[in-house]
Amino acid sequence: MPKETITPRAADYSQWYLDIVRAADLSENSGVRGCMIIKPYGFAIWELVRDALDARIKATGHVNAYFPLLIPMSYLTKEAEHVAGFAPEAWEVTRGGGEPLPETYVIRPTSETIIGEAFSRWIKSWRDLPMLVNQWANVMRWEMRTRPFLRTSEFLWQEGHTAHVTEEEAERETLMVLNDVYAETVENVMALPVLKGMKTEKEKFAGAVRTYTIEAMMQDGKALQSGTSHNLGQNFARSFDMKYLSSANTEEYCWTTSWGVSTRLIGALIMAHSDDEGLVLPPAVAPIQVVIVPLWRSDAEREQTVAAARRLGGDAGNRFRWHVDDRENLSPGFKYNEWEVKGVPVRVELGPRDLASGSVMVARRDLPGRDGKQPFPLETATERIEALLTDIQASIYKRALDFRTSHTFEVETLSEFSDAIESGFAACWFDGDSGAEDEIQTRWKATVRLLPLEPPQGQGACFYTGRRTTRRAVFARSY
Amino acid sequence: MPKETITPRAADYSQWYLDIVRAADLSENSGVRGCMIIKPYGFAIWELVRDALDARIKATGHVNAYFPLLIPMSYLTKEAEHVAGFAPEAWEVTRGGGEPLPETYVIRPTSETIIGEAFSRWIKSWRDLPMLVNQWANVMRWEMRTRPFLRTSEFLWQEGHTAHVTEEEAERETLMVLNDVYAETVENVMALPVLKGMKTEKEKFAGAVRTYTIEAMMQDGKALQSGTSHNLGQNFARSFDMKYLSSANTEEYCWTTSWGVSTRLIGALIMAHSDDEGLVLPPAVAPIQVVIVPLWRSDAEREQTVAAARRLGGDAGNRFRWHVDDRENLSPGFKYNEWEVKGVPVRVELGPRDLASGSVMVARRDLPGRDGKQPFPLETATERIEALLTDIQASIYKRALDFRTSHTFEVETLSEFSDAIESGFAACWFDGDSGAEDEIQTRWKATVRLLPLEPPQGQGACFYTGRRTTRRAVFARSY
Repeated sequence: MPKETITPRAADYSQWYLDIVRAADLSENSGVRGCMIIKPYGFAIWELVRDALDARIKATGHVNAYFPLLIPMSYLTKEAEHVAGFAPEAWEVTRGGGEPLPETYVIRPTSETIIGEAFSRWIKSWRDLPMLVNQWANVMRWEMRTRPFLRTSEFLWQEGHTAHVTEEEAERETLMVLNDVYAETVENVMALPVLKGMKTEKEKFAGAVRTYTIEAMMQDGKALQSGTSHNLGQNFARSFDMKYLSSANTEEYCWTTSWGVSTRLIGALIMAHSDDEGLVLPPAVAPIQVVIVPLWRSDAEREQTVAAARRLGGDAGNRFRWHVDDRENLSPGFKYNEWEVKGVPVRVELGPRDLASGSVMVARRDLPGRDGKQPFPLETATERIEALLTDIQASIYKRALDFRTSHTFEVETLSEFSDAIESGFAACWFDGDSGAEDEIQTRWKATVRLLPLEPPQGQGACFYTGRRTTRRAVFARSY
Repeated sequence: MPKETITPRAADYSQWYLDIVRAADLSENSGVRGCMIIKPYGFAIWELVRDALDARIKATGHVNAYFPLLIPMSYLTKEAEHVAGFAPEAWEVTRGGGEPLPETYVIRPTSETIIGEAFSRWIKSWRDLPMLVNQWANVMRWEMRTRPFLRTSEFLWQEGHTAHVTEEEAERETLMVLNDVYAETVENVMALPVLKGMKTEKEKFAGAVRTYTIEAMMQDGKALQSGTSHNLGQNFARSFDMKYLSSANTEEYCWTTSWGVSTRLIGALIMAHSDDEGLVLPPAVAPIQVVIVPLWRSDAEREQTVAAARRLGGDAGNRFRWHVDDRENLSPGFKYNEWEVKGVPVRVELGPRDLASGSVMVARRDLPGRDGKQPFPLETATERIEALLTDIQASIYKRALDFRTSHTFEVETLSEFSDAIESGFAACWFDGDSGAEDEIQTRWKATVRLLPLEPPQGQGACFYTGRRTTRRAVFARSY
């Protein structure tokens, strides 16, 4: 088994990403156009992200349900903007049971329409509101150019769909999910700082009134949209006749929202934290948080150190997720490398000499080489390792935040914008319309990532039109 | 809101089932042919079943992964029996991105083929074996007549796929999953006793060498196949070139297995335990195990009893899943009925008089009416309720087991068989071939559910052919 080769970030960032995905055994292409196989190690990371999200989705009052995979084409066409956005990307089911189907179905690209149809039957009175439903599902969209996790024809996601009595309540929900579910999970679990803001008209979801987004910076300075939350106004309520009888006994249309995050998050996680040695995982989403590698030169030593390694794991109990690597046919060096490539946050080396001195050598993945190595007394090792994991989680977050801070530029002129966009985010006063956004995209391949939720006060001159404006924007190239 | 009407079992068992599904708000039909919507309460039950299975699947060494939804038609046709079994039920995807696809895809009816293709690339040496993979997924099969949970065109399931070095190891895996994962979960979590056995040639999975099954008895005496585990021999290994280099340095085909259970289990759960009042849920799969209903005649009393109800719930902590029903616009009687229909195992009534006397009235769902009601002292209520839940779980299991025992008949003659099959399982010596099975199915609508794993010793005369045989079978009508 040869050492996996990983292209350095500086040489070819895009190839580096593909190398990490392969070397860490996260996913691979399949024989189905644009679709990947999520391999066990990649899926275990997704399970941790998913469970963290699911807990927060439930804690904020939502319930899970499941709606059909297939959507009748007639549903999709009911909301004009929506069908324009999604029909060109459709995967179509035209035959069933050996016969042509009377109506074509589309594999769900998103479920506003089929859930809207259900809500129109479920909601009768204001007492049925708010209706707060979430679904974990696979969805499919036709994609010309794919990249593992970041852009695939099939992906896994959750999609929240809610209906409310008032516009204000729908807006509050949209922002609550963005802040308390999405930003909270991505920052505190995935250790990835995000900017929060609103999409422009040009960039919003097909069928939404307003789309909010969280955006993270990758190590090449590009943005990755990590989650979106849509205030749908009454667009889908009108298309699907979602009405309720108000407390004043009048018939009213609901106000609805939808919001989603996907396996794309795994792409963000990989790109934001990893290094030239391999994957780097924040402990909260590491399937194995601590790998214990017993060392030996004889069978007697093996027996002794493997037993001690198991004891250490047993002492840890539920404090952390540990694994003892006692494979016989591999050298310690090979094992260290393998766990490094797989991003395990802490490695514990346990040899006969360590045992004799009552200590273990502990190496942290986020600080490779000598800097990250230190001995812990065996007696207090599990407490110390637990504290170390907390420290690693915070350090990884801080590193990503520092990187973003040093790659975010306040720009006032076209020339400053040109420079900024080459290496990171450009924050600016921006007064342009969709036409201006198109021109900027053509010239610099950059888009408005968001209009910040909490912009600086005051006003300034738009870097592009020169007009005075109170509107702030963050531009970047993006995935 | 009118009281939900539930047809009594004795009047129309089939309608009773549909009434329970509707009244307990578990699922409903959708606008997509043969596909249901799993509503939040039904999905919460599925989540509990799924999590119990997932824990056991992982505890027995399997890892989760995710494979594409779509299967190239060319994969499906590689195993002859398999394609014959599944192609007629296929949902076909023929267009993508607005164009006809170069190759037709099938929405996975099961994933032996696409996972087999992956395994052929993943497995190189005996050191890579056993390969123990599981997937949670949606699948689709064309169905002419559907019934919620029991038979739907789309359903949710898990499918395990494993590859082994020897035939014996594959056989051991097939039986281990049947016993330690499936029977264990269905009996101890879903409180549903199962028979374990092997399918006949006629009834086995398309492409398997041997199919093992667990079968449960419903309250109309019919069998419901609740999980199957297949020893696939080298059939798929040969079709997909799944080879490994043995420790003796020779190329060998793997021995593979596959096994699955689905949302069908929810149908079994409903049919086996529920009564004419509504759903009955074993506590282990009840989303709400204890509903606490505070009673009041004045605002002051309301404040007092709602606070006490919350305190009781708070005391319970993680001992059980509780919910305080403090809705203002509904009468206690309405609430009692609603939670009864929804199968909540324990109801706690808490009024001002109870508070004054330091006790609460506790009602168990599995014993409706006076028999199931008793007062608990408030001080020890949470411990008592916890113990009661354990008792209810055991009682529900025992009731199902007693029912099965009293509806299982040892038969020796055609006339005994005729009688037995009208009300339950017919256990017998059976020496017939597929032809005999066909004749029996035509005449009595009954099939061999299984050849028991642990048959009685000895031999007897086949009830059908009259020949002496050592082969035992259990016949029944089935869902």
